[in-house]
Amino acid sequence: MVRTIFDEVLLRGTCYENLRVLCKDVGNRLSGSAGAAKAVVWGQKTLDAATAQAGKGGANVFLQEVMVPRWERGAKESCTLEAKGQKSIMLDVLALGGSIATPANGIKAEIIEIHQFKELDSLGEKNIKGKIVFFNRPFSVTDVSAFSAYGGCVNQRVDGASQAAKYGALAVLARSMTHALDRYPHTGVMIYADSAQKIPAAAVSTLSARLIHDAIQAGKRPVANLKLFCRNFPNVPSHNVIAEIRGSELPNEYIVVGGHLDSWDTGEGAHDDGTGVVQSIEVLRILIASGYKPKRTIRAVLFMNEENGAMGAKEYAAQAAAKGEKHYAAIESDRGGFTPRGFAVQDTGAFLRFVQGFRPVLAPYGFTEITTGFGGVDIGPLGASGTHLLGYLPDSQRYFDHHHAQTDVFEAVNKRELELGAGGMAAMVYLLDQYGAR
Amino acid sequence: MVRTIFDEVLLRGTCYENLRVLCKDVGNRLSGSAGAAKAVVWGQKTLDAATAQAGKGGANVFLQEVMVPRWERGAKESCTLEAKGQKSIMLDVLALGGSIATPANGIKAEIIEIHQFKELDSLGEKNIKGKIVFFNRPFSVTDVSAFSAYGGCVNQRVDGASQAAKYGALAVLARSMTHALDRYPHTGVMIYADSAQKIPAAAVSTLSARLIHDAIQAGKRPVANLKLFCRNFPNVPSHNVIAEIRGSELPNEYIVVGGHLDSWDTGEGAHDDGTGVVQSIEVLRILIASGYKPKRTIRAVLFMNEENGAMGAKEYAAQAAAKGEKHYAAIESDRGGFTPRGFAVQDTGAFLRFVQGFRPVLAPYGFTEITTGFGGVDIGPLGASGTHLLGYLPDSQRYFDHHHAQTDVFEAVNKRELELGAGGMAAMVYLLDQYGAR
Repeated sequence: MVRTIFDEVLLRGTCYENLRVLCKDVGNRLSGSAGAAKAVVWGQKTLDAATAQAGKGGANVFLQEVMVPRWERGAKESCTLEAKGQKSIMLDVLALGGSIATPANGIKAEIIEIHQFKELDSLGEKNIKGKIVFFNRPFSVTDVSAFSAYGGCVNQRVDGASQAAKYGALAVLARSMTHALDRYPHTGVMIYADSAQKIPAAAVSTLSARLIHDAIQAGKRPVANLKLFCRNFPNVPSHNVIAEIRGSELPNEYIVVGGHLDSWDTGEGAHDDGTGVVQSIEVLRILIASGYKPKRTIRAVLFMNEENGAMGAKEYAAQAAAKGEKHYAAIESDRGGFTPRGFAVQDTGAFLRFVQGFRPVLAPYGFTEITTGFGGVDIGPLGASGTHLLGYLPDSQRYFDHHHAQTDVFEAVNKRELELGAGGMAAMVYLLDQYGAR
Repeated sequence: MVRTIFDEVLLRGTCYENLRVLCKDVGNRLSGSAGAAKAVVWGQKTLDAATAQAGKGGANVFLQEVMVPRWERGAKESCTLEAKGQKSIMLDVLALGGSIATPANGIKAEIIEIHQFKELDSLGEKNIKGKIVFFNRPFSVTDVSAFSAYGGCVNQRVDGASQAAKYGALAVLARSMTHALDRYPHTGVMIYADSAQKIPAAAVSTLSARLIHDAIQAGKRPVANLKLFCRNFPNVPSHNVIAEIRGSELPNEYIVVGGHLDSWDTGEGAHDDGTGVVQSIEVLRILIASGYKPKRTIRAVLFMNEENGAMGAKEYAAQAAAKGEKHYAAIESDRGGFTPRGFAVQDTGAFLRFVQGFRPVLAPYGFTEITTGFGGVDIGPLGASGTHLLGYLPDSQRYFDHHHAQTDVFEAVNKRELELGAGGMAAMVYLLDQYGAR
């Protein structure tokens, strides 16, 4: 059956073409945007097509309403760097998602560079007040997992503004969350602490970060002029998109495969998370085409709003609980569409060992690593009711070359890598459904 | 020590910058070309720099002369496709390495499509004579290993001309050796059987292959006009480039790490095999920088002429035998510079099991697959004297998107993937040197 699953996706896979349409015809799709609304329509239509082979009554596609934040970038942001004895330089910047705007003529102030939050405490208000704080802690290159390197830096982006505002900073710049040394700024969510003064926040490319660092090191006391035009609006309605094949023996037990339909408003949201979306859709198509009759109900869920609120994730889990739907397991694909490595199982005990027992049948397809680890943001809220959580693990080395940047485009995805991932997810659904404890 | 090795390459690796220089300043470097001569100079200089830290007398860099074939593409080739009721189309073609030229005004003849050589036997001279034979067997997509798919198709490119010439074909076109559906033709070596009439041979892109196939299927009896201007010259002298760190206990036992310095004359020879070359150089640099004093003599060998003759490989093994140099093991990197998977060990017995014993220390860096398999073309001739042969195994899914095509450029290589590969090779050298049977 596992061989049948992989043959189906490698010979007749539709996920790569689906991704092309999502990336090129829908494009990026931040929660609350016109692109996100278009993505919902696309998701429903694509799930209809993927499950059409199941015949009348064989599959069911529906929307689940959810209120989501709406933030808009507005006009193109900018940031100049001025220092004594050199010409003004345009830095590569992108407002961070959730940031407020600057005044229309910008915020102009001296930049100070920070690596660890505790340096803010040492410097104190006398050195920080009235300045722009530049967070420049780079990814650890010795972490083999790129996600681990990300985890060691991302608080600069998420919490940096509130940390710096405590001491009177006027704005923050955060080094982009990437290993790459290039000119692409990487956006992503930032969150204002309830107690904090709200100040504007933007990402700078790693090459721009180097320019700022060099100017500071040279004692030039550089000044930045940051202009952001972004804006937060009241929440708006949007949707999770769901398709299911009803179980033949345990129809009220569910296995979910999912990714998130929203993306940042730059690039095409290809690896984050177009690939997870089209892989989840493909799982249903593969199982139907392979003639598999699941015991449990299998759902593909295209979650809305992972990037800045996870409102779709919370709504899905709340409705599952309210309806008494028992979710046996959930698998998320939200680490890119690269070549398979394995699965992260959010467990350290018997269930982890149970899943590790599948390694011999999955290893020939590249799934050699079945380890304890994080399942995923969108399936996370299901954990509270005892759902087993699994995250699809592709190779991580290239992911942050694209993550939240304009380089996250269809062309960065390899057809076979994408298909092998979908095959592994379908195989895992099959194995959990067949051999999972009742 | 393994952690020290990986930290050294991830923190202070030079292989990515070396690759940039090789790709951008030297460029492609077919045996016998000016580019290859430039690559030899570059190799010697780069090995000098990489081993400089060893201090005076600590390392030794030298050239080994070898006679190599010289083939030149000449003027840009072309092929038009003409069929009733449609405009003449320019196909994407590249002469195959070793092919003779067509007459200056080309060879113009009807095309017949073949998938298996045995179809030639069935069709016979009456259907083949005076035609252009088009070999169009695609890669198997269900083979998880791309190299396995390549192995199932490459006889069309290597032997197709001689097979078709037996029945009077005038020329051959071979479908490019790739999974990708695009407009890039992929060249590579073709070999004329001694007994065969020599006829011109070219690769066509997979999209051009589809055009030809569709025209034939539509009953249009398409005619191609193929013009090749390539030429074979007498052999010329070239060099293997070698650097060694002398062993402290067993100086006349050798462990070789190598890749090949030559490339095809299109693209930049980045993944084939610039990455293997810079990784091999990096292994010496890492071991020296880590303060490791090897028991055996460790050599990095940049082999000349893997692509069309393997004369460097043969010369190296012949000289090793003549000088009584005992080669304990050899590791080749010639499957691209992608993210690590493991090692192929050309053994099925005790040595394979011995190397598999290293899996626990290598797996945290992505080296999870230590399997029986092919070592490499360049180290192959050493096998006759009992040398243990190992091939570095990176992920294979993207390799044939670039192999022998203009898309094999520096930009297709990821810095961290390249460095992790070099780290694994250095770790394997260290482990074999430390724990290998004396």
